[in-house]
Amino acid sequence: MTTEKINNISVTTLANVYFDGKCISYGITYADGSKKSVGVILPASLTFSTGAPEIMECVGGACDYKLPGSDNWVRSEAGEKFSIPGNAKFDIRVAQGFAAYHYICHFG
Amino acid sequence: MTTEKINNISVTTLANVYFDGKCISYGITYADGSKKSVGVILPASLTFSTGAPEIMECVGGACDYKLPGSDNWVRSEAGEKFSIPGNAKFDIRVAQGFAAYHYICHFG
Repeated sequence: MTTEKINNISVTTLANVYFDGKCISYGITYADGSKKSVGVILPASLTFSTGAPEIMECVGGACDYKLPGSDNWVRSEAGEKFSIPGNAKFDIRVAQGFAAYHYICHFG
Repeated sequence: MTTEKINNISVTTLANVYFDGKCISYGITYADGSKKSVGVILPASLTFSTGAPEIMECVGGACDYKLPGSDNWVRSEAGEKFSIPGNAKFDIRVAQGFAAYHYICHFG
């Protein structure tokens, strides 16, 4: 089961544009003040940096990711999640010609 | 004044990806069931088609637009809106090297 909709939230109207638009996300805030983001990564190979720990939940398409300290690329598809430690770098790649990777980023 | 945040809505987690990612938007739904979208257009010159009439509200960056039946490009910046009739085509361009055009699309 993928999360198709998130209810009762606020959305910031200004997109976060990363890597010349290869990654676009919007910040959302829950009633209790907690924050997540919804985003999409287009075909590219990108290195991200975390502040807080993150959980990346795939809601559509697919990517391959490589965690810090690992040499292995792992596939993540709709309905799957992976966790990244705080203050770390990790890689995401979406193959050319593949569908984009759609995600929810959970912090903390 | 630009609309920086939209409260008490639902967001669809799957992005709409148009024109190879030059335009990305997310659908949002209000408590009364009405729908809008928040989106961003990267540097490109694109032709869009409307179903329902639309109002495009700029919330960041800028674009030039050309309405159906017009030969004039008009600038739209943060805090400004323009209206497009239903079942029509219109053009939006964001110059290379310029900031993206961030918008809220109001329908109907």
